[in-house]
Amino acid sequence: MELKATLTARAAPVEAALREYLLVRPPENLYRAMAHIPLAGGKRLRPVMALLACELVGGDSAKAVPYAAALETVHNFTLVHDDVMDEDDLRHGVASAHTEFGVAAAINAGDALFAYAFEMVTDSDCSDALRAELVRHLAITVREIGEGQQMDLDFEERETVAPAEYLEMVRLKTSILFGSAAFGGARIGGADAREALELRQMAIEVGLGFQIWDDYLDATAPAETLGKPSGSDIRQGKRTLLVIEALDRAAPDDRARLAAILNGGDNSDADVAEAVAIMERSGALAACYERANSYLQGIRDTLAKYPQGEPRQLFEALLEYMVTRGH
Amino acid sequence: MELKATLTARAAPVEAALREYLLVRPPENLYRAMAHIPLAGGKRLRPVMALLACELVGGDSAKAVPYAAALETVHNFTLVHDDVMDEDDLRHGVASAHTEFGVAAAINAGDALFAYAFEMVTDSDCSDALRAELVRHLAITVREIGEGQQMDLDFEERETVAPAEYLEMVRLKTSILFGSAAFGGARIGGADAREALELRQMAIEVGLGFQIWDDYLDATAPAETLGKPSGSDIRQGKRTLLVIEALDRAAPDDRARLAAILNGGDNSDADVAEAVAIMERSGALAACYERANSYLQGIRDTLAKYPQGEPRQLFEALLEYMVTRGH
Repeated sequence: MELKATLTARAAPVEAALREYLLVRPPENLYRAMAHIPLAGGKRLRPVMALLACELVGGDSAKAVPYAAALETVHNFTLVHDDVMDEDDLRHGVASAHTEFGVAAAINAGDALFAYAFEMVTDSDCSDALRAELVRHLAITVREIGEGQQMDLDFEERETVAPAEYLEMVRLKTSILFGSAAFGGARIGGADAREALELRQMAIEVGLGFQIWDDYLDATAPAETLGKPSGSDIRQGKRTLLVIEALDRAAPDDRARLAAILNGGDNSDADVAEAVAIMERSGALAACYERANSYLQGIRDTLAKYPQGEPRQLFEALLEYMVTRGH
Repeated sequence: MELKATLTARAAPVEAALREYLLVRPPENLYRAMAHIPLAGGKRLRPVMALLACELVGGDSAKAVPYAAALETVHNFTLVHDDVMDEDDLRHGVASAHTEFGVAAAINAGDALFAYAFEMVTDSDCSDALRAELVRHLAITVREIGEGQQMDLDFEERETVAPAEYLEMVRLKTSILFGSAAFGGARIGGADAREALELRQMAIEVGLGFQIWDDYLDATAPAETLGKPSGSDIRQGKRTLLVIEALDRAAPDDRARLAAILNGGDNSDADVAEAVAIMERSGALAACYERANSYLQGIRDTLAKYPQGEPRQLFEALLEYMVTRGH
């Protein structure tokens, strides 16, 4: 709870920048559609990570605010387009952009948000050389996010996915944008490329841990902790690392039963509990727990190189939240 | 015909760059979807205009090739997304990206193309300061293209659109990317901002003339010239400047009849001929012809400031093609 308040306070300058960038102006239907999801909430983990990385290396995080806003804008443009691709109607507790404004306007608003993100990067308070470097870094990152998205689409058509393939998809689709937060924040803060790349790698591992922990919690945490029904991934038949590991490790009967539950349209609470029990006895739950925790050690080793102080302390708290929350 | 061959020859280095950038690699479904429309054809007007603007101001156009490729990539990402928004099945004589690869993959491929364009801009052979300036210019331009796209979507819901509103929509949706070609090409060629902005304005007027001339030809040119049935805009009930001017200028009976033809689903050749006759006697055809030609004079005045020579001559030939072809 205290961490949440700290995050909100730390995100405040980025929040203010986003509200200014996303002021509604003509044509209003465009700017309303652009502002809809970015200003509907979200934890602002990426921008806060960028600001903290900037401070961690001894920089002034005020200089990284436009870059941090750009990352949040990239994240939100992918959310707007993902909701169109997945035909999801809800996001952050509000109607998704295409539900509110129509598919064409949502695709267009996502494109305009994406363009805006690059404009924000060029607002960074740094040298022209670094501006050009950050644009290039972010452009390559977004293309690689597209690679991850396509892998995810491809997996839906396939019978089996190996754990390593799944992790590579998650690395591209969600983790490397955390990597960009640490990388760009550190570069703006004065870190050289080698140091910034080490922090990027650390943040990518945080992103991987975050996703695996999310999957783990969905199966194991009570509804009160999750803020949604427990086991919703299982009910939706989602292919998480937990599911992939369980199908990989379970005995033949268990594997068949788990597949039947995942493919079944209308599962009872008892079915979900049975799926979790199979995940447990196959060793998949333990394997995912181990894997999420294995990232933590590397992360702590990297952070240990930095002086004690508020940025490092907050960074540690943020990472622990992302990888061990609700446990 | 000779101009067409010259354009093809001039576009060759950009064509080669695009083929290299768009090499298919894993995940193949992404890169195949990305390459599909950009490599299916197109006149490469924007890249050629960028290279010619570079030479016009005395620069080496080889330095502008990555920027020119970026413009063609931006143009193609908007085509891929527009086809999804408009549910169009064909483009450049091949299946549109979403018809070939599915809606989700097409949206994602468009996003990845867009990201790639910014990476290409940073490949430009120029100073870091200019790289950052060109990224910012292109980012603002793409956001403004989104404004034009939204205006176009808004117009579909409205009873009437004024000619000035329509022209502003066309300026944003299609002309300013020609403006970016002239602007960026000239800047890479060594022009200062003032000179590059003057060439940008000229290219925007070319873009406006190009669109108006396209609408004019559709109603007046024979099928052999168009390479498609004459009057297809009328058959589709498209709201072009010609239609807007005709509805604005026609006598009440003619206006009602024209509206009925445009809203009618299944028009005969005689209906189309009647619509063209109404456009003729309302003065709309003449007004559009005048307007397209009015841009030409300003364009010629700007070009007249440059020394005679191949770049200026080719530029003139290109502009005449864009605004008076088929007449």
